[in-house]
Amino acid sequence: MPPPFGATDATHHRPGFPKGGSSVAVTRALPEETAIAMVYDGTTHAVMMATPADVQDFAVGFSLTEGIVTGLDQIASCEVIPHPKGIEAQMWLAEDRGAQLAARRRSLAGPVGCGLCGIDSIEAAVRSLPTLAGIGPVLTVEEIASATESLRGWQPLHDRTRAVHAAGFLLPGQGVVLAREDVGRHNALDKLIGAMVRQGIDPAQGAIVLTSRISTEMVQKCVMAGCTILIAVSAPTLHALRLAEGAGLTLAAFARGEGFDLFCHPQRLRAEVFDVA
Amino acid sequence: MPPPFGATDATHHRPGFPKGGSSVAVTRALPEETAIAMVYDGTTHAVMMATPADVQDFAVGFSLTEGIVTGLDQIASCEVIPHPKGIEAQMWLAEDRGAQLAARRRSLAGPVGCGLCGIDSIEAAVRSLPTLAGIGPVLTVEEIASATESLRGWQPLHDRTRAVHAAGFLLPGQGVVLAREDVGRHNALDKLIGAMVRQGIDPAQGAIVLTSRISTEMVQKCVMAGCTILIAVSAPTLHALRLAEGAGLTLAAFARGEGFDLFCHPQRLRAEVFDVA
Repeated sequence: MPPPFGATDATHHRPGFPKGGSSVAVTRALPEETAIAMVYDGTTHAVMMATPADVQDFAVGFSLTEGIVTGLDQIASCEVIPHPKGIEAQMWLAEDRGAQLAARRRSLAGPVGCGLCGIDSIEAAVRSLPTLAGIGPVLTVEEIASATESLRGWQPLHDRTRAVHAAGFLLPGQGVVLAREDVGRHNALDKLIGAMVRQGIDPAQGAIVLTSRISTEMVQKCVMAGCTILIAVSAPTLHALRLAEGAGLTLAAFARGEGFDLFCHPQRLRAEVFDVA
Repeated sequence: MPPPFGATDATHHRPGFPKGGSSVAVTRALPEETAIAMVYDGTTHAVMMATPADVQDFAVGFSLTEGIVTGLDQIASCEVIPHPKGIEAQMWLAEDRGAQLAARRRSLAGPVGCGLCGIDSIEAAVRSLPTLAGIGPVLTVEEIASATESLRGWQPLHDRTRAVHAAGFLLPGQGVVLAREDVGRHNALDKLIGAMVRQGIDPAQGAIVLTSRISTEMVQKCVMAGCTILIAVSAPTLHALRLAEGAGLTLAAFARGEGFDLFCHPQRLRAEVFDVA
C-alpha cells in the first residue's frame, strides 16, 4: 500500500473547557480538497471537489459511471495537468465517442449543476439503468458481515484524518483486494472503479464495499460498472433501494461486523445459510 | 415542530448470524430521496437528489448561496411542481436579475456537472468569496461545545432513519432556534438558509451548526449567507479552512459536547474564557 497522502497537518487551538481551563495547541491532519475538472476533447464536463490523489483512476471511473464512455478503449488519452487552483483531467476520446458526446451536449438546454452530472432534466437525472445479467459471484453471510472490517485495512487517509470515505472491492474468499479514498463518497467510488478497470479487474466478479450511506448515485455508479453486489456500513435511501431492485443489484446495508440487513436480490447469498424465518 | 416526514418504512431480512442462525424480518424507516430541479425563467439550472420536504426553503437558499440572487426580493415567484419522477422548483426572477443570469449562462462553454453548480472552470469553481465584515455575535465556549447537542433536538427525520444530515441556526443565549434536515448536507444547509431568509431571521446574528464535515462548499454557502460562525461535529478540509480564514469566518469543528477545536477567527469567542496557553 502507498503511504498516506492527501492530508496536511494544521495547528490550531482547543479552548479550555469547561470555562476557565487553559487552551491547548492541537495539531490535526486535515484532508486536502481540490477542484478537479473532467475535460473531454477540450470542453469541461464537470468540476468536483476531491482528494488530489489517484486522478487518472478518478477520470476513468467517472467517465464510465457517468456513461461518457463504455470502455477504457474509448479514452484515447488522459493527461493530469496541475493548475494553481486545481487539477485538470484532460481526456481525448476515440473519434466516434467524441462525436456522440458533442451531440449529447448540443441537445442540452443549458448548464446544470450539483447532484447529477451533465443532465438538465429530472427525467435525465433519474436515468434508467441497465439490468445486471446472471447471478455472478455468491458470498457467505460471514463475508458480507465482515466486508467493512476488511475495508478498514485499506484506509490510510482515514486513519490520519478520520474524515474521508472509502470504496473497496471484495472478491469471494479473498476479502477486500483494492480500495480508494476521497473526501467525497462518489469520488471514492469512481476512483475505485477506474482503478479496477485500469488494472484489468472485472467488477462483475465481486462486491463493492462502502463506508457511507447508499444514495441513488452510488447505486447508479455500481450498476454502470457492472458490479452485482453493493455492501455498505449505513442505510440506503428509498429511491436507491427501488433502483437496486429494478437493476438486479444485491443490496446489503448496515454491514457492521455483527451482521447486516439484506435489502434485495438475496440470490447472491449462499443458499444454505439464507433461511428466511 | 412538524411531525417527521421524508421517510418510508421498508421491510427486508436480516440473515442469521453467525452462520446457521435464522433470518428475521426487519422494518426500517428509509430516508426518501427525490430529484429536485432548480428552474429559473424556464431553464433548468441544477438537479439535486434531496429529501422531498421544505422545497421552497431549498429553492430560496440555493438561489442565495449559489449567487443566483442576492436577496429574496429578486425572486418574483417560486412554485413547487410535483412531477412523476421528481419535483420542480419553478422560479421567475426579477427582470434585471434574470437578464444577468442569462448573460452568465451564455458565457459558459458547455454543461457542467456534480460538485459545484453552473460553473465550468476550476477558476470559477474556486470562486472568491466576500469578506465578512465586523465582529457580529460572540459566543461562549459552552455555547459552541453544546451546539451540536442543541441541534439534536431538531432532528426528527434523523431520529427515524439515522441516515440524514441537519443544519441548524444558533442564537447567543438561546441555543438552536431553527433547523432543516436532508439526505444531503449541502441541501440541509441551503434549506436552513432559505428558511431563515423567508422568516426574516438574519444569518449575521448567530451561528450555523452542522452534523457533517466542513467541506469547501459548506464554507462558501455560509459566507454567501452572511453568517460569521460555523460550528460542526466533524473536521474541516484544508481548503475549507483556508477559505474560512480568508473570508473572516469563525470555524469551530469537532464540537461534541466535551469541547471543540477552534480553527480560525477566535475573536467571536468571549475573550474572558479564551486564554491561549
